[in-house]
Amino acid sequence: MPDNEGDTGSEQAPIALDAMGGDHAPDEIVAGAVHAVRERGLSVVLVGAPRPLHEALTRHGAASEIPIVRAEEALAMDEGALASLRRPRSSIAVACHLVRRGDASAVVSAGSTAGVVATGRLRLRGLTGVPRPAIAVMLPTLPHPTILLDAGANAEVKPEMLVQFAHLGVAYAEAGLNIRRPRVALLTIGSEAEKGNKLVKRAHELLSTAPGVEFTGNVEGHDLLTGVADVIVTDGFTGNVALKTMEGAVRYAFGELREAIASSTTAKIGAFLQRSRIRDLHRRLDSEHYGGAVLLGLNGTVVIAHGAARAAGISAACDLASTLVRQGVVTRISERIATTHRPHRLW
Amino acid sequence: MPDNEGDTGSEQAPIALDAMGGDHAPDEIVAGAVHAVRERGLSVVLVGAPRPLHEALTRHGAASEIPIVRAEEALAMDEGALASLRRPRSSIAVACHLVRRGDASAVVSAGSTAGVVATGRLRLRGLTGVPRPAIAVMLPTLPHPTILLDAGANAEVKPEMLVQFAHLGVAYAEAGLNIRRPRVALLTIGSEAEKGNKLVKRAHELLSTAPGVEFTGNVEGHDLLTGVADVIVTDGFTGNVALKTMEGAVRYAFGELREAIASSTTAKIGAFLQRSRIRDLHRRLDSEHYGGAVLLGLNGTVVIAHGAARAAGISAACDLASTLVRQGVVTRISERIATTHRPHRLW
Repeated sequence: MPDNEGDTGSEQAPIALDAMGGDHAPDEIVAGAVHAVRERGLSVVLVGAPRPLHEALTRHGAASEIPIVRAEEALAMDEGALASLRRPRSSIAVACHLVRRGDASAVVSAGSTAGVVATGRLRLRGLTGVPRPAIAVMLPTLPHPTILLDAGANAEVKPEMLVQFAHLGVAYAEAGLNIRRPRVALLTIGSEAEKGNKLVKRAHELLSTAPGVEFTGNVEGHDLLTGVADVIVTDGFTGNVALKTMEGAVRYAFGELREAIASSTTAKIGAFLQRSRIRDLHRRLDSEHYGGAVLLGLNGTVVIAHGAARAAGISAACDLASTLVRQGVVTRISERIATTHRPHRLW
Repeated sequence: MPDNEGDTGSEQAPIALDAMGGDHAPDEIVAGAVHAVRERGLSVVLVGAPRPLHEALTRHGAASEIPIVRAEEALAMDEGALASLRRPRSSIAVACHLVRRGDASAVVSAGSTAGVVATGRLRLRGLTGVPRPAIAVMLPTLPHPTILLDAGANAEVKPEMLVQFAHLGVAYAEAGLNIRRPRVALLTIGSEAEKGNKLVKRAHELLSTAPGVEFTGNVEGHDLLTGVADVIVTDGFTGNVALKTMEGAVRYAFGELREAIASSTTAKIGAFLQRSRIRDLHRRLDSEHYGGAVLLGLNGTVVIAHGAARAAGISAACDLASTLVRQGVVTRISERIATTHRPHRLW
């Protein structure tokens, strides 16, 4: 493994980018790295099979700009959690190792979510007091995003874990979005306390008395994009379904709109819709631009880019990772958990 | 209770419309009834407190057109399942009673979903072989809608119930949408069989071997609006969150679009967006127009209109109920369950 320290003059260690994960790996990942380095001024190392990565970098004329760290194997997109145990030399495992050694500041991967979560847990370990990491995404509300977690790391959870997720989300909102006393809500199927399944009913009770959590009560699916809360907690199954449903609904609405425009005879309308606010809106709702999800609660920063991410999405994910490192999100979470953590085992 | 038979010359018994349920009861419910009778040629009876209903009908000049069936009480929107036991004379209970006696063909209510479900189960009973009714909604896919169930009747389910929901959904797709051999999919968080929580993993196994079910495998949230399946089954918690998330996302996208238009200087664009396809699209995605959800698996037809429904939504819900009665959905479900029902208790 080549030494990747000292390659950059910046203070922050480089971002370890898993070049083998994602539907469009490695070419779009390499293109994203080149964009991140040249356009955003970030420091990046690519982790994966050296030969194809070197070839791809050469095509960009960037072989001397971006170092490669060798990884013999890659997790396939359909490989789940167990693969992370079977493949200690996978690109994502090596990327985690770089962070653990201090040779990288963060991991970015567009690989299989289950594989990234399992490998992250195994190689970076959870922070003290955080038995389960959670995936946090930023929903495109205004004036600032709403944080939704867990968006898919834990398909089965216990009520106590939702309290833990609240702490992770609050620390993220404070450090990442600069929100004071973030309002926390619980995603369920009715605004009254007794609405929902057993899990959320019990979680509602626990959140109501959790120290350090500004709990504002239940919210429903249609509240996700209204900015009614700063942090919305849910189990990873429900959160993942909700997130993908939202993405699908927005894609559907814009697709229908595009067809309506195509069938229009007024050229001005097409021109208008290419412009300004509509374009902004589409970008804001498009995962290619908002960078991806963050795996919170580990002893290191991990950003999970969309599996279908192309260069722009990868570059945005590197930018998000760099921001999180600069804002010290891992330390902030650690401090918050230390002050609220009860010494006995919660589960 | 006045006799409400023989009030109309149509073959179908009138629809029993719960005039006391919903955010805008009774005025918008009455206005919806008047619309359904005058514009759609339906036969409707209003169930609720006679005096305010008579006054509202008089304002429409419709006191002689639409009969009123007295109900002393109403379920409040925030009352849950237990209220249905406490209030045997609620408007929704009386409406169910009319259907049970054969004096009405279907129930329509915009009341509390939990209250309607519990009252329906208690007063109409489940069909033989259907221990739990489920709420089915039609998602606005093309060329025909996709049926999603359960959208909120059962917050806790067992894997076997998802197979039952598949049968309900298939019968509804066959009878209501005239689809032959409807494709059934399971909502979860990954397309592979092993993805999801314990519930869906076991349900996947059961659906794979369920006789009479054309099971096509797992789908994710972003597949809800792509028409990839005709029937999508899920538990009532996940289904409710997904449905409301979808509604919220579409509302959000159109709201942002409207703002973008308002800030535009080209008047033509506003005019265009009022027109044709865009308008159709908004209507297709708007619950005011698609009529509402259907409670499947009871010994009678029950349509649950949106709690916020106004006259147009109520009228559309009456139309949906009338269509379901004409198409014999209850009988079709009953026949399908009889051929697939195993005699021992499933749960």
